[in-house]
Amino acid sequence: MSTTSTTSATHPKWQELTERALEASTLGSCASVLHWDQETKMPPEGIEPRGRQMALIARLTHELGTSQEVGDLLAACEADDDLVGDPYSDTAVTLERLRHDYDRATCIPSSLVSEEAMLASSAQHNWAEARRNDDFSQFQPYLEQVVALLRRKAECYGWAQGGEPWDALAEDYEPGCTAAWVESVFTPLRERLQNLLDRLMGSSTPPSNAFNELCLPIDKQRAFVTDVAKSIGFDFQRGRIDVSTHPFCTGFHPKDVRITTRFHENNVNDALGSTMHECGHAIYEQGLRQDCARLPLGQAVSLGIHESQSRLWENQVGRSEQFWKWCFPKLSKYFGSDVASLDIDGIYRGANIVRPDFIRVEADEATYNMHIMIRFEIERALLKGDLEAADVPAAWAEKYREYLSIDVPCDSKGCLQDIHWSMVSMGYFPTYTLGNLYSAQFFDAAKREMPGLEDGFAKGEFEPLKTWLNEKIHQQGRRHQPAELCEVVTGSPLSADHLMTYLETKLGGIYGL
Amino acid sequence: MSTTSTTSATHPKWQELTERALEASTLGSCASVLHWDQETKMPPEGIEPRGRQMALIARLTHELGTSQEVGDLLAACEADDDLVGDPYSDTAVTLERLRHDYDRATCIPSSLVSEEAMLASSAQHNWAEARRNDDFSQFQPYLEQVVALLRRKAECYGWAQGGEPWDALAEDYEPGCTAAWVESVFTPLRERLQNLLDRLMGSSTPPSNAFNELCLPIDKQRAFVTDVAKSIGFDFQRGRIDVSTHPFCTGFHPKDVRITTRFHENNVNDALGSTMHECGHAIYEQGLRQDCARLPLGQAVSLGIHESQSRLWENQVGRSEQFWKWCFPKLSKYFGSDVASLDIDGIYRGANIVRPDFIRVEADEATYNMHIMIRFEIERALLKGDLEAADVPAAWAEKYREYLSIDVPCDSKGCLQDIHWSMVSMGYFPTYTLGNLYSAQFFDAAKREMPGLEDGFAKGEFEPLKTWLNEKIHQQGRRHQPAELCEVVTGSPLSADHLMTYLETKLGGIYGL
Repeated sequence: MSTTSTTSATHPKWQELTERALEASTLGSCASVLHWDQETKMPPEGIEPRGRQMALIARLTHELGTSQEVGDLLAACEADDDLVGDPYSDTAVTLERLRHDYDRATCIPSSLVSEEAMLASSAQHNWAEARRNDDFSQFQPYLEQVVALLRRKAECYGWAQGGEPWDALAEDYEPGCTAAWVESVFTPLRERLQNLLDRLMGSSTPPSNAFNELCLPIDKQRAFVTDVAKSIGFDFQRGRIDVSTHPFCTGFHPKDVRITTRFHENNVNDALGSTMHECGHAIYEQGLRQDCARLPLGQAVSLGIHESQSRLWENQVGRSEQFWKWCFPKLSKYFGSDVASLDIDGIYRGANIVRPDFIRVEADEATYNMHIMIRFEIERALLKGDLEAADVPAAWAEKYREYLSIDVPCDSKGCLQDIHWSMVSMGYFPTYTLGNLYSAQFFDAAKREMPGLEDGFAKGEFEPLKTWLNEKIHQQGRRHQPAELCEVVTGSPLSADHLMTYLETKLGGIYGL
Repeated sequence: MSTTSTTSATHPKWQELTERALEASTLGSCASVLHWDQETKMPPEGIEPRGRQMALIARLTHELGTSQEVGDLLAACEADDDLVGDPYSDTAVTLERLRHDYDRATCIPSSLVSEEAMLASSAQHNWAEARRNDDFSQFQPYLEQVVALLRRKAECYGWAQGGEPWDALAEDYEPGCTAAWVESVFTPLRERLQNLLDRLMGSSTPPSNAFNELCLPIDKQRAFVTDVAKSIGFDFQRGRIDVSTHPFCTGFHPKDVRITTRFHENNVNDALGSTMHECGHAIYEQGLRQDCARLPLGQAVSLGIHESQSRLWENQVGRSEQFWKWCFPKLSKYFGSDVASLDIDGIYRGANIVRPDFIRVEADEATYNMHIMIRFEIERALLKGDLEAADVPAAWAEKYREYLSIDVPCDSKGCLQDIHWSMVSMGYFPTYTLGNLYSAQFFDAAKREMPGLEDGFAKGEFEPLKTWLNEKIHQQGRRHQPAELCEVVTGSPLSADHLMTYLETKLGGIYGL
């Protein structure tokens, strides 16, 4: 590490501690390889034996991370002033994060880790089946088990000492985040968003959807998005792109970061958006410090900050007019006469259409956040015991009517659409909207510090933005808590203003408000 | 398991023992997934972090398999007459194999396992570099370390109690196999083979090489070999085919078995042969018992028997006249006018050309075994201390002159061509020739038991052979030692006669001897 305290490099207890921590996170990274394989390459019948591999690695990783030996090493290092004398040194910060992780992990018995992995496997399987059959009642007993297990887990984490169960679980995804804080951020956001949506839906000059409905061959789409990925900075020497139903990014190490995307003949914009989104995640992972890879200062700080990186490249860059000035000739190069009817302005407007609909992953930049708020409120109520699993479909329908003025037609387009709860994950959803908020705030800071940044996009100059993000965010690892990182990078705490001003300006212009 | 002793299913110590054994082999199967990924998908820079993942899993797998707990459970089960009363029961046989594995694994300290994994990583890297530079001297220090480490490992296994160091290492690949026994099998084989080669090389009517030099598009080759793989019985619901420099097969579980193949525009026969070869391995892995997957009765018995399965499909089936009667119309279907100049007889003869050359993996059925004998003799001498690493190139050249009458032109086409030694593997090579011998002997037994078997190939009937192999070999797992399995299946001990008679008959016919 670059700014270690003088003695840490040769301090035997410290060496041993980081060695043990590396083992646990390296084993965790093996699970990530298996998960990537499962989603992209595994033959259909491989699922059952794969479940057993994953459960075993989860348990062994937990055992490595919670051993008495690690506890003793932590205590010995914490007592050594050579290591912790300067609280801002890499060593002291790393130690603080390792202590946090150890204390969290030791709250949970190994048996619960195995139980969770087994439940995740069966719940996901049954969720997929229920969704295929469009029948929530098939998934309901599993959701009940998920809620029960997560309430037990939240108890292990000691939520009763303050806050509510949701907070204890969210800590795994967004350190320092509480439901009350999320609510305080989301409430003003929702009001201003609803106002904007009302005005957009009343516009008499909405954009045309022609760009999104063009039929383009998939092999050419693949070449096109690969070219864009390379141009914005995804390093293929340290990564690859594959195809999966739901696009995702996974990093085993800064030297091996994989993304997936998806292709539909009649939706090149989805392939492009998915690719740029996942590239944003990947540029974060590839931008992490290699000298402390798989250790806290070489790890991403939170899912919210991670999502800010994907959203920034997908939206602030990929849906900007300047981006399309650069990208339009590329579109012509790959698709020739198939895109002859389009022009830059039409594409830019088409890429920014706003339309309240049922499916979160297909939602536009504005309505997306409403989908998140609904999920947050429902999972929070489930964990509190204010809502029963059986009542989720009704609560879901009610909130979609209230927030988006649409009637959910069926479970598969309603409360069965997301995989998260079946993965035994609650506390995760808000990080998507936090990501949107962070991305707008980071981008405002970047523009302030680099005048003319957006004009560069029109010339294909994406390196300045990438370098800025590398330095300000990626290379920081877990040095700061996410909310603190936002203040350090932008000079002010997270606020919905940046996202809302960005949306009001851009969409207001496009919709002629 | 199907024929467990009465009480084993509910015997708590036995349940615990198999649970522990399953964990070790499941973790080992995770390493196989990582290795598959490394060879087929991993981006270039991923190699270094992957090395650390592999070394960690190797060490943890070893620790799981050698714990005191497993030792105590083994002892408790062995002392229980309910479990071992019937020595032929699945339970007793499983216990015997678990004891064997435990005793072997506990000979080796964990530190040696880590050291071996680290050496394998650096030695492979430097071997690849040396081969690229065609310079043995760059690899020599690593080969010296490999030999030194393997001699220490053989000492840990206690070779000095009988036999020689090579025997102790070969046990990992071919249980029960000794260098003296290999020599006793290889010596008569070499004499008869040399005689055959002399006569073939003197033939005035050798086959034409036209089939092997045809230029055919790779996407069509891919469709063609996929079709053949499906036809001979590879199950794509439980497996997949990818591309790698050196084709291989790896099974994580009977439900997830992967093979790779390779394509060259001007060598469809190589793609077909590689695919059928790996399919043979895969049909073995997919044919293992699922009710005791990853436990001894659901594991392959040895590399020699494994190789017999691949060779049988590649050679006895894939290079037969009857096979080509069925396959020729397929060739026309996929390649159309590009193969119009060919006929069945020409292809059959072309697929069986014999030509002494330098490269083992490109060798024909007859000369292949000479390559193996040379490697066996050299590695045996290295381990005994009769040959220094520095003298390997000279020994290599001398043996190629003696056995194949050719002059090795350079290291990269000589002693640097194989990856095995750099993987810290010695004792492995002879299993290739043992596989050839077993395959011929098994095939003779199959023909004896199923008259008209080969005529079925001409009609695309491969199921009878597959079913026979499933029952006689695959479903036996590790019930018998490999040499014993040969006797059980064929009625007689392994002999070179079957392979030699097969080669003399087929090649004699083709070469007009």
